[in-house]
Amino acid sequence: MTDTVGALGEAAVLARILPHFRGGSAVTLGPGDDCAVVEFSGASVVTADTMIEGHDFRLDWTQPEELGWKLAMTNLSDVVAMGAVPVALTIALACPDDTEVSLLEGIAQGMQNALDLVAPGCAVAGGDLAHASELVCAVTALGDLRGEAPVKRSGARVGDQVAYAGELGLSTLGLAALFAHGPEAREFAPREVRAQLAPVTPIASGLQAGAFHATAMMDVSDGLSLDAARLGRASGVTIDLDGAALTRHFGVQDGVVVSLRALLHSGEDHGFLATFPKEQPVPPGFCPIGTVRERGEALLVNGEPVQPAGWDPFQNR
Amino acid sequence: MTDTVGALGEAAVLARILPHFRGGSAVTLGPGDDCAVVEFSGASVVTADTMIEGHDFRLDWTQPEELGWKLAMTNLSDVVAMGAVPVALTIALACPDDTEVSLLEGIAQGMQNALDLVAPGCAVAGGDLAHASELVCAVTALGDLRGEAPVKRSGARVGDQVAYAGELGLSTLGLAALFAHGPEAREFAPREVRAQLAPVTPIASGLQAGAFHATAMMDVSDGLSLDAARLGRASGVTIDLDGAALTRHFGVQDGVVVSLRALLHSGEDHGFLATFPKEQPVPPGFCPIGTVRERGEALLVNGEPVQPAGWDPFQNR
Repeated sequence: MTDTVGALGEAAVLARILPHFRGGSAVTLGPGDDCAVVEFSGASVVTADTMIEGHDFRLDWTQPEELGWKLAMTNLSDVVAMGAVPVALTIALACPDDTEVSLLEGIAQGMQNALDLVAPGCAVAGGDLAHASELVCAVTALGDLRGEAPVKRSGARVGDQVAYAGELGLSTLGLAALFAHGPEAREFAPREVRAQLAPVTPIASGLQAGAFHATAMMDVSDGLSLDAARLGRASGVTIDLDGAALTRHFGVQDGVVVSLRALLHSGEDHGFLATFPKEQPVPPGFCPIGTVRERGEALLVNGEPVQPAGWDPFQNR
Repeated sequence: MTDTVGALGEAAVLARILPHFRGGSAVTLGPGDDCAVVEFSGASVVTADTMIEGHDFRLDWTQPEELGWKLAMTNLSDVVAMGAVPVALTIALACPDDTEVSLLEGIAQGMQNALDLVAPGCAVAGGDLAHASELVCAVTALGDLRGEAPVKRSGARVGDQVAYAGELGLSTLGLAALFAHGPEAREFAPREVRAQLAPVTPIASGLQAGAFHATAMMDVSDGLSLDAARLGRASGVTIDLDGAALTRHFGVQDGVVVSLRALLHSGEDHGFLATFPKEQPVPPGFCPIGTVRERGEALLVNGEPVQPAGWDPFQNR
């Protein structure tokens, strides 16, 4: 006998989901009222992201806890990429009547597990439960800038170092393995599948970027080359990536060989691309991978123009 | 020749949508980076809501501008119901490839139209665009408490006046007309259909509740009786609604007759139910409709127990 959301109704489903969430110090009123209350010190950041069954995930490939984990991690990355400290998430879930409540509980627990690991001061403040034909997960993340200026995409200066923290290319290799072999891909490509289904983003490194005087930063979610070109365009400069440095630092990750092409043109990496003043130390976890040049081509690799490529939700399927 | 999101791709679609949004004074960095930046004075509120094609709206009944309008209005109501001033919305849209960009533009313009009317200091700060089989609209709203304590559901005290601001029952009558007659319902039930598709929520009244020492407040979205019972339970009291007062104030709205049953047990009203100290004036737009009693039955009407009823997304279809 299993419980479905249709059989239980909204109130009973919420009573099952909410105990999976722990509070956080900045969330002074949690779920149950019209809004949650979050304490901010002043300027803060907000980002929204949606993951939809069949388009962004498949329930025959992913465990509910992994899905919740990924939802939290990818949104936390966007907050940290602005130089902010994550303080609260909201989660709006929509699902069919016959959805098992245990699936939603797993998503909730996975979100909390991710917060416990990388953002223990951040809490799920509230959300929404609605009806849909496919499972829809819409997450919003809030972060506090703690009196610091946001680290935008537009601050890179000619001569700055380019650095990256996180994994590169593994997630897309994991997705390819899942498409080719289904859930059995976990057996022979466990590391790549984990990067795709339950990524660990370098939150601790990203949180230090401000203290190391990062001039620009962004979350790399659509592919390093595409996002580097975006950062360059926003800053009015050109990013020149060092292929040898990329291969040296990221050509073998946890025993997995990743080609330069895969390093450049994958997606869902969720690491941090940042620029720092030249000849200064970069934060732990960041690896130097290039230099900021004067505005010219969209992107350079080893000084040569390369066409940026990566993920577009409407043109990559 | 029409443009679809699949043909244009993400960047071009965003370039069409974003010009429909005006900025707001609290949003110091708008769409285009990993996050938007919002200035808060301290404690703030956040709420999330999702509307999904075929479940929460039908594109053959509603105009895109109406859909955007309703998305904004219903989320603004939740913010104001906490005693907060709306400062920012986020909108995550997901849709099929063959969705016309003009549809998404209409949603954006409708959101901005609603903000212009009732919350001109509030801005759409950012969002997300993703792929789905049906149109998904996930909105988050942020409000600033401006140093005041939040007005929670739990503060009603025995002897307080119960008051309501907004429309009651019209929206559900409009939905019934649409189910019975489709888009032609606009012709013979225009007022009810407007309440359903493009509600005007009493934001100005709600914003004054704090200054009138409201002890509790909530947005009535699932039916007056159901939500009054919730407010009573949260406060450890029982709400006693005055049927004669309800009929006097709301029995005829804009020429539309609404039965007491419809006043009590409808949904999607998005007005404000609040409690105020007895024998004190209530804010403009609020009508006294009852009294707070000691905890007993879930809900009273004219001193007699009434079974609360209203809207549950998983048990009302």
